[in-house]
Amino acid sequence: MVELRSLGWNCGFLPTGKTNSIIDVPGVSIGHYTIIEGKGKLTPSKGPIRTGVTIVLPHQENLFKHKVRASVHVANGFGKSTGIPQIQELGCIESPIAITGTLNVGLVYDALVEYMIQESPQIGITTGSISPVVAECNDSYLNDIQGRHVKTDHVFQAIRDAKCTTQVEEGNIGACTGFQVFQLKSGMGTASRVLDKNLVNSNKDFHIGTVVFPNFGIFEDFLFYGYRMAETLDEKKYFPKGRIKPKSSAKNVHGSIIVIIATDIPMESRQLNRLSKRGINGIIRTGSSISNTSGDFIFAFSTANQISMENREPIQTCDIVNDYSSLMEYAFRAVNEMIQEAIYKGMLAATTLVGRDDHTAIGLDINDLPIVIKPS
Amino acid sequence: MVELRSLGWNCGFLPTGKTNSIIDVPGVSIGHYTIIEGKGKLTPSKGPIRTGVTIVLPHQENLFKHKVRASVHVANGFGKSTGIPQIQELGCIESPIAITGTLNVGLVYDALVEYMIQESPQIGITTGSISPVVAECNDSYLNDIQGRHVKTDHVFQAIRDAKCTTQVEEGNIGACTGFQVFQLKSGMGTASRVLDKNLVNSNKDFHIGTVVFPNFGIFEDFLFYGYRMAETLDEKKYFPKGRIKPKSSAKNVHGSIIVIIATDIPMESRQLNRLSKRGINGIIRTGSSISNTSGDFIFAFSTANQISMENREPIQTCDIVNDYSSLMEYAFRAVNEMIQEAIYKGMLAATTLVGRDDHTAIGLDINDLPIVIKPS
Amino acid sequence: MVELRSLGWNCGFLPTGKTNSIIDVPGVSIGHYTIIEGKGKLTPSKGPIRTGVTIVLPHQENLFKHKVRASVHVANGFGKSTGIPQIQELGCIESPIAITGTLNVGLVYDALVEYMIQESPQIGITTGSISPVVAECNDSYLNDIQGRHVKTDHVFQAIRDAKCTTQVEEGNIGACTGFQVFQLKSGMGTASRVLDKNLVNSNKDFHIGTVVFPNFGIFEDFLFYGYRMAETLDEKKYFPKGRIKPKSSAKNVHGSIIVIIATDIPMESRQLNRLSKRGINGIIRTGSSISNTSGDFIFAFSTANQISMENREPIQTCDIVNDYSSLMEYAFRAVNEMIQEAIYKGMLAATTLVGRDDHTAIGLDINDLPIVIKPS
Amino acid sequence: MVELRSLGWNCGFLPTGKTNSIIDVPGVSIGHYTIIEGKGKLTPSKGPIRTGVTIVLPHQENLFKHKVRASVHVANGFGKSTGIPQIQELGCIESPIAITGTLNVGLVYDALVEYMIQESPQIGITTGSISPVVAECNDSYLNDIQGRHVKTDHVFQAIRDAKCTTQVEEGNIGACTGFQVFQLKSGMGTASRVLDKNLVNSNKDFHIGTVVFPNFGIFEDFLFYGYRMAETLDEKKYFPKGRIKPKSSAKNVHGSIIVIIATDIPMESRQLNRLSKRGINGIIRTGSSISNTSGDFIFAFSTANQISMENREPIQTCDIVNDYSSLMEYAFRAVNEMIQEAIYKGMLAATTLVGRDDHTAIGLDINDLPIVIKPS
Repeated sequence: MVELRSLGWNCGFLPTGKTNSIIDVPGVSIGHYTIIEGKGKLTPSKGPIRTGVTIVLPHQENLFKHKVRASVHVANGFGKSTGIPQIQELGCIESPIAITGTLNVGLVYDALVEYMIQESPQIGITTGSISPVVAECNDSYLNDIQGRHVKTDHVFQAIRDAKCTTQVEEGNIGACTGFQVFQLKSGMGTASRVLDKNLVNSNKDFHIGTVVFPNFGIFEDFLFYGYRMAETLDEKKYFPKGRIKPKSSAKNVHGSIIVIIATDIPMESRQLNRLSKRGINGIIRTGSSISNTSGDFIFAFSTANQISMENREPIQTCDIVNDYSSLMEYAFRAVNEMIQEAIYKGMLAATTLVGRDDHTAIGLDINDLPIVIKPS
Repeated sequence: MVELRSLGWNCGFLPTGKTNSIIDVPGVSIGHYTIIEGKGKLTPSKGPIRTGVTIVLPHQENLFKHKVRASVHVANGFGKSTGIPQIQELGCIESPIAITGTLNVGLVYDALVEYMIQESPQIGITTGSISPVVAECNDSYLNDIQGRHVKTDHVFQAIRDAKCTTQVEEGNIGACTGFQVFQLKSGMGTASRVLDKNLVNSNKDFHIGTVVFPNFGIFEDFLFYGYRMAETLDEKKYFPKGRIKPKSSAKNVHGSIIVIIATDIPMESRQLNRLSKRGINGIIRTGSSISNTSGDFIFAFSTANQISMENREPIQTCDIVNDYSSLMEYAFRAVNEMIQEAIYKGMLAATTLVGRDDHTAIGLDINDLPIVIKPS
Repeated sequence: MVELRSLGWNCGFLPTGKTNSIIDVPGVSIGHYTIIEGKGKLTPSKGPIRTGVTIVLPHQENLFKHKVRASVHVANGFGKSTGIPQIQELGCIESPIAITGTLNVGLVYDALVEYMIQESPQIGITTGSISPVVAECNDSYLNDIQGRHVKTDHVFQAIRDAKCTTQVEEGNIGACTGFQVFQLKSGMGTASRVLDKNLVNSNKDFHIGTVVFPNFGIFEDFLFYGYRMAETLDEKKYFPKGRIKPKSSAKNVHGSIIVIIATDIPMESRQLNRLSKRGINGIIRTGSSISNTSGDFIFAFSTANQISMENREPIQTCDIVNDYSSLMEYAFRAVNEMIQEAIYKGMLAATTLVGRDDHTAIGLDINDLPIVIKPS
Repeated sequence: MVELRSLGWNCGFLPTGKTNSIIDVPGVSIGHYTIIEGKGKLTPSKGPIRTGVTIVLPHQENLFKHKVRASVHVANGFGKSTGIPQIQELGCIESPIAITGTLNVGLVYDALVEYMIQESPQIGITTGSISPVVAECNDSYLNDIQGRHVKTDHVFQAIRDAKCTTQVEEGNIGACTGFQVFQLKSGMGTASRVLDKNLVNSNKDFHIGTVVFPNFGIFEDFLFYGYRMAETLDEKKYFPKGRIKPKSSAKNVHGSIIVIIATDIPMESRQLNRLSKRGINGIIRTGSSISNTSGDFIFAFSTANQISMENREPIQTCDIVNDYSSLMEYAFRAVNEMIQEAIYKGMLAATTLVGRDDHTAIGLDINDLPIVIKPS
């Protein structure tokens, strides 16, 4: 596949990690379970099915026993993500992070409970309880969402898939299976940045990576590196039945995005919150208006300074990044750059999908990128 | 049953509603499903079971179509309540409010989705999705929580029970079945206040009611109208195996509380948030220290100015309470008074329960209330 | 002066108000006091002085007696704006809004107190106290900020100036006198949008306007309608002493922005908060990265449903916008569009200024806008 | 003076520090400037004056160069405290903390700027700017607040006073000069707790201290260790002109409280926020209802892990307390205990004061404490 970067389209000036994906942050992995079944007319609770679940694992150990410092920014709260208050209170995540279609949240939540009890059989017996993190977007344009087709076994398979990640596939996969972005087919995208030790005046390099699950926007708003794509794309190719013009479609812009940011920079939760707040920058640069009905949640976690439940020592020695150092500024910049890039990468990896009631979302063709702004 | 008030123990000076319960707020109802099965040694996922689910209905119509203005105060976020970000963003609740044991949250969430699809079959097809509100406390001292014994059918039965409420039963019921408070048996409690039109200079009376689900605290902290009960209660009766002394037990005070506040005062969500923040006052007066590991969530909703999804008019005419009027001040006071009273009422209605591994929580005997401070 | 719009550069598709400025919102006015004195080497507390104060009046009556519903979004809190907690608690603003240079905040605050006591001599005697709103950015690159040169009399003059506004001047004026944006000279900018009654399905038009006080960013980040200006601008003209390249300058991006949004849409404070959160969209589209050390505050107020202190009725009848109507979506879009436009307008109105130690900020020349993306 | 503790009234079971005051936290100091001038009828801007300023210094070095980690909980935001957004964003305080009467805030803010420039002459020249923290309550019942009588020199004297603290005086002093609590004379109070290394399983003791500035409540609400004092106090002694009965006075309960919590426990800002949220517990136990018009701000800072501006290393090694350790739970308990005690101590140290228009606030007589609940 032709890559954006091979065509000269970088985002910003910071170097990417080895795979330009979230797994460039050591220890992080990601897995999926995708369900595509049936076609034609919607029969509620039966199908057609275009949905899935994605699991992000901040590390490969037991997350209940080794919690990761975390935060979340709710850019727009018209969404159903679970686990938010506990992340805000305790500054950590203690479960795999699941992303799925909206109405699946309850069952996926319960599946994470089941999984974590299997990993830590003392939960709820000699120790407390757990707080599963499940995020979602609404895949109802393509999928039979009343059916809640993601079951416990699918979540377990996605976790197993994550545990043997070697590379990150993008596009119509896992949670992103049924999503749309700018009325085109959405795809999961990923990107990463390295903060070189010389740049940030440190004694080692730091890594920061992201995965994005976009499900927002109207076509007219889509900006590719600042360029309004509606001016150039062949309307007949992308909207064979005709598209709705902005003043009309803008009146009810559906859509959401879930973003996960991972880093090995040793941040406390307040700093991770600052990082997650910057997550909207890249989203906005692609043309999102953070619309009224969107559930826009940006999670950030650090793999450093894990909180061990096997250690109840009152005081723990941590490395913590200095807010007043340039490392903080570059980390913000890395977030800006990589999220914008991840959205474009995901869109280019996505392929046309026909869903319920023959609703069709067409994938963006890399050959249709605008020549006028093509980097020389 | 002998009542606190018949013994002279009022809380504050505002008059109660007709039943001194949450259903004094017109339209509000509450229902339960209680599960008590098995006894003896814990077999994880099997039993014994001491759990349940409670449903609060802000009104008797379809809640998705007629949302109620709402807010929530997270006094301590070590809890798993769902639906919080959407309440904060949109200032309303659009589902029945369910309260249950911690690990049941996923299945109860899914049951609410199922229920609401039955009520509004267009959800996820021609209209958006829904955000179920599920709150919880940890009933693991008495209950097999790994079993997640609250199923869809139980939630449906609790909703049906709510729909035919005529009075509010207190004590070991619904969500409160397996809860403890101050290491005694907890019970669901309820109370209400009327704000008389002459008092608040209005043209009609207003009502404000609460239900509480306490699951917090160590015995040493229990205050009854300011009186430290540890000084007077017969230790052998309440702690036949001996109780743990404060310096030791204080080091790890488990526990949480869920509070629901209902009112017909026409408040916008910011004002309901102010109201819910006062919810902690009554809790603290009973001796809670809002401990480290508690999930303390206080929900408040108004039955006035419902948001109709059948009306997409851009502008709606509402009555809104004036922040600078005495009605606001009295509403805060009502919250203070009635939550303290509801906790005591629930404790006195609770009865001794033996749970898993023969763990026993003893109900507070009304005859053991302190004579020294008894109102004359 | 040649206008952006006359060259074809609109921002979005919504029509502007009559003057494309904040005073298109009926009742709103704005005034300034500008201080430019001395030149050459900095003598701390003496000069040179390049500073000022701007006053926004939500209406022309006594603001303490007729408060306006309001909210504020703190996009980055590295700033000293006052009055924030009370806006968040009570959902209103009760003073003129002052914007000034950072270290002037205390004296400007005190001047607003003095002004409001003159207007309402009962303050602090028979009634409560007042909460002045003062926002700021750091003008130390051009100005002697230790001198705190904005005095009570200057604030009074700016208020008087506001009271006789007939049009809004942009550029180096008032608070913006000493500000920089993208290392060029910043200017106060303004814009507005009209939401036509037919578009939003209402029985009257609504207005929404903004003023911006930008003081952020490095040159490399400046985007003009998506176009990276660093690729085209004549470096010798704008940075005669040479500019710092991105990897270096990015390590410490100073800067902030204050934005005021006014509307006559009847919004409650929660809705105004949602509006103010969208304020960052336009900022980000111009190239801001919401840097580490910025104080980015976006205030929003509505002129509808004023809160009268002469009316202590417990219940007030209000019109309130429906969150689920298209009016809400278009209001968000208006914010996106007009803030981006206001930043560009302010930059083009700004003119080169030499300040302390001969620090120079050069104004953007409209003839240097990129032809490549010029609208046809 | 007879002490509460010598009469047997402890608050809780944790031991106090050596002086039972905030200076038991090593490095912390406190100073005052008190102004009592004139008597009789109020002449606005002239007098009588009953006001002052209090300064808390987290340590004895330059605070701009050595910031302390901090947080603030806004229990009710009807107040004018400055510096809040920056504390929330950066998790630290970089100025002396000033407490004063409401309308003095602007001038006290400016005085702190002046002081800090003298300490760090590079502020605003080669480095950024500063964010002064000023908190306030309304002393208008006794004081001519329009006069804003606290001037720069007074603030400087209070800072000098702090720098030579050897013990903490309580009562009518500094900011508390003109405050009332429960319609009696308020006094600044202080208390502390030691967390013994054996108790918290640490290798050293930790300290936690507080000062409180109460200015809230109606007499009917005053609870002394749970006992309603209105039932026992001699009404003629305390309210020679008669007091207003609860249903009437409750309709407009004025009042606020400022609380400062200091500790040497190494907490990050999120943890300090959790600590400050517990600050309301002690307040509520004395009878406050966190009334509508109160500005209730609870600041917490740690003297550990100071943030040095002379060290821009990207990574700093810190000790951080473990949220899941018993140290956290005991720290919460210490806050509960000591704030309740500090309020009582301040009230008992306060003495009757006659202010403007002969308004009189009578000091609570230790001989009037209720015998019925007196500890044996």
